[in-house]
Amino acid sequence: MNMFFNPSSVAVIGASNSPFNLGATICRSLHEFSPFGGAVYAVNRKGEDVHGCPGYSSVTDIPGHIDLGIIIAPALVVPGFVKQCGEKGIKHIIIESSGFSEGGEQGKALQREIDKIRNAYGMRIMGPNCLGVLNTENKFCCFYGIQKDDFETFAQKNGNISYIIQSGGIVVIVLESFKNDVVKAAKIISIGNKSDIDEADMIEYLSTDEKTKVIGMYLENIKDGRKFLKAAKKVKKPILVFKVGRTTEGVRAAQSHTAGMANNDLIFESACAQAGIIRVNSISELHSLPRIFTQMPPLKGKKIAVFTNSGAFGGSTADLRVQAGLEMAKLSPETQERLSRTGQIFNVTNPIDLGPALSMQTFLEIFDILLSSDEIDGLLPVPSLWHPMVIEAIMELVKKCHGYGKPAAIYTPNAVDKTIAYRNNYQVPLFESPEEAVRALAVSHRQYCYHAMKDELQLRAYYELSISQNNISYNDYADGA
Amino acid sequence: MNMFFNPSSVAVIGASNSPFNLGATICRSLHEFSPFGGAVYAVNRKGEDVHGCPGYSSVTDIPGHIDLGIIIAPALVVPGFVKQCGEKGIKHIIIESSGFSEGGEQGKALQREIDKIRNAYGMRIMGPNCLGVLNTENKFCCFYGIQKDDFETFAQKNGNISYIIQSGGIVVIVLESFKNDVVKAAKIISIGNKSDIDEADMIEYLSTDEKTKVIGMYLENIKDGRKFLKAAKKVKKPILVFKVGRTTEGVRAAQSHTAGMANNDLIFESACAQAGIIRVNSISELHSLPRIFTQMPPLKGKKIAVFTNSGAFGGSTADLRVQAGLEMAKLSPETQERLSRTGQIFNVTNPIDLGPALSMQTFLEIFDILLSSDEIDGLLPVPSLWHPMVIEAIMELVKKCHGYGKPAAIYTPNAVDKTIAYRNNYQVPLFESPEEAVRALAVSHRQYCYHAMKDELQLRAYYELSISQNNISYNDYADGA
Repeated sequence: MNMFFNPSSVAVIGASNSPFNLGATICRSLHEFSPFGGAVYAVNRKGEDVHGCPGYSSVTDIPGHIDLGIIIAPALVVPGFVKQCGEKGIKHIIIESSGFSEGGEQGKALQREIDKIRNAYGMRIMGPNCLGVLNTENKFCCFYGIQKDDFETFAQKNGNISYIIQSGGIVVIVLESFKNDVVKAAKIISIGNKSDIDEADMIEYLSTDEKTKVIGMYLENIKDGRKFLKAAKKVKKPILVFKVGRTTEGVRAAQSHTAGMANNDLIFESACAQAGIIRVNSISELHSLPRIFTQMPPLKGKKIAVFTNSGAFGGSTADLRVQAGLEMAKLSPETQERLSRTGQIFNVTNPIDLGPALSMQTFLEIFDILLSSDEIDGLLPVPSLWHPMVIEAIMELVKKCHGYGKPAAIYTPNAVDKTIAYRNNYQVPLFESPEEAVRALAVSHRQYCYHAMKDELQLRAYYELSISQNNISYNDYADGA
Repeated sequence: MNMFFNPSSVAVIGASNSPFNLGATICRSLHEFSPFGGAVYAVNRKGEDVHGCPGYSSVTDIPGHIDLGIIIAPALVVPGFVKQCGEKGIKHIIIESSGFSEGGEQGKALQREIDKIRNAYGMRIMGPNCLGVLNTENKFCCFYGIQKDDFETFAQKNGNISYIIQSGGIVVIVLESFKNDVVKAAKIISIGNKSDIDEADMIEYLSTDEKTKVIGMYLENIKDGRKFLKAAKKVKKPILVFKVGRTTEGVRAAQSHTAGMANNDLIFESACAQAGIIRVNSISELHSLPRIFTQMPPLKGKKIAVFTNSGAFGGSTADLRVQAGLEMAKLSPETQERLSRTGQIFNVTNPIDLGPALSMQTFLEIFDILLSSDEIDGLLPVPSLWHPMVIEAIMELVKKCHGYGKPAAIYTPNAVDKTIAYRNNYQVPLFESPEEAVRALAVSHRQYCYHAMKDELQLRAYYELSISQNNISYNDYADGA
């Protein structure tokens, strides 16, 4: 699989100098934008060079070995190109073109032809109907249509979350979101129709990828339930999945898009419980929740303390915490006494109301009191950013969280655009809403519990608990999907 | 009540030139920032002028009639000032100071003292522990601490949504959100502890306020259930409420903030159903959902059509629509045929997949086909903004929606900061997530149904339906709250 992410020679098949040619935009990224050092060739009818990449009229004419073939040509001519790749000895192919199993009977026939050729030559194929991969480490990116500014932004954002995404449209939102976040990408993989390589293959690859600490997935269907479950169970890294098709209508809509069966959702839900997969509720959670894993230690217990300058958030976050299965930490008279001694705190019971104005020193004292107390497992800070000092205090809090091994899911009550600007400018892990912050704590704790329970018996108990209402047996998913 | 919003003479009691004096910031807004034409006086121990407002050492020394007294002084001296206001004949008072019923036994005693004085002089009091009012129409704003830039931004945003907000902290978020929105404020009212004027009084006032088309509320408790229900039932305008205290923990937390009982949540829920109030799930919904009421016609039926360039959103929005109680519109062969004839549409069944690239003309044709069809009650457009032409098409769509009397809840798949920028720059009602857009359609339809059912019997049926699972009788709320 590594050749898909770290090739040293690439052929972009279907890249030409015609107006609006999508292959040309890939040549441009690979040759002009990127410090990616490998050789890049273009294949087109005229054999013309494209954006400085030497051109050939056939794959077999290219001199030397080719690690990766990227095909972006009309569906009808794709099987011929796949065959040329086979003859050339190319073992890894990304087909970005659409018009295959999602495109009616003719498309399905073309897909079968490609499958045959692939089997004959022993190749691995990603796609069709996909964007391929972005690897921020070596700056290899074969997404078509990417602009120079965007490319440079992502190239600088070398981080540790990787995404496996079935739809190209979602890739674009994920890419955009990285521009203003403290979370940064390792690899983004757009798998499209999954004629060969599927989500399970990519989970397996990312499980051993050193750069990847968290895996996010957008799926419209599962290709092979048993394989997916097996791959996911082996991974120690958090896996977050957004899957379309909770309702019959959603299933029907998804089928017309990337040509898969969206499967029985109840079974998928139970599979997630078995494998410790975190099922997220929206595409935006795929982007927001990883922050709690990449920037904070895990939440080892359920007892949460809130501190805020605005009493309004004491009440609303208390509701949310309870609904998320967490608990309001009960502060002992000793802890309350210690908090009182720091100065002007309005309310020293949990939720702690800091009142309008605190000094930096008081903030730091409060952080130490709360994080050092075994009455508290994690924090939900909702500080008002009325002064630049507060953001400095938040930066110190992030450090202290790592010191004490307890997380804080921080929400600053501002309009969302301002929150995003603070997050980006100061590189602190702010959440965009109180709901997101609470949800982040909940998934952090769930992930911790799952991996803390090494014993199979306990794992089963956890699983039974998660799906007790559904009455599904342990192996239903693998058998039924 | 009008004197709280349109006074012609105001005394800011407690405003002085001491450093960090909050009253001084009110004098600054009223006298320096604002074109608000009324007279503004300052009352302080030295009788000194503040930011150009003539100073007096007692309220009774001010010459002429005073419409509104704004008190912002330490709690202990507030009763004395209230008495001075009474002697001066001031009938309307806003007490912004804190330290009353939310502040222990001493505070409660001070509150009782104020109540007595108020009754003796027949005054109406807003607060204490509040920010008072912002009226964008005449630019009257008595919030303390407001900056010139902020003031000017809001002053220009003369719109038609009004908020009744119990907590000052929430006021700040709401104000910030207006900076980047197509929705604009009419009046913002921070009611604090509600010792006298409460949410029901303000609903009643706003129900006859011509500028107000939608009412948003943030509440931590209901002061008088029967009065609230009676006021809300009379209003034809949409009322959206976020109320803290869904769980016992939330109730406890809210009590320590603005000193009210958060009441039985189940009863509140049933009251909302009776009175046609829309209960929102987050503070951000208070800001996002009004867009569907201020910018779009109502959703009269349940049948929704989606069109998108990215098949990914066909599936996920179908799930959401069904979960929200709406339906996927079923397109007849005739409508599908008309859509096909427009050109390169990938999928003419609902969700409609537009494919990657359409011309402006094709967009307009599609809008007309969909909006004119009686198979469709509303639209959920998810167009990719790959070209400036698309935003122009969206602007045309908004106009067409008004022409056909059907709403569109538009989501453009971009990172949230980009969506906000588009919304602000082009003044189009974009939602920030697919969830928000679907929810907006759902509440629009609910509001329409509630007011379409004039018959009491039907209203009762609606109410029974809404709370059938709770087994609460029609009058429980008024009796129990």
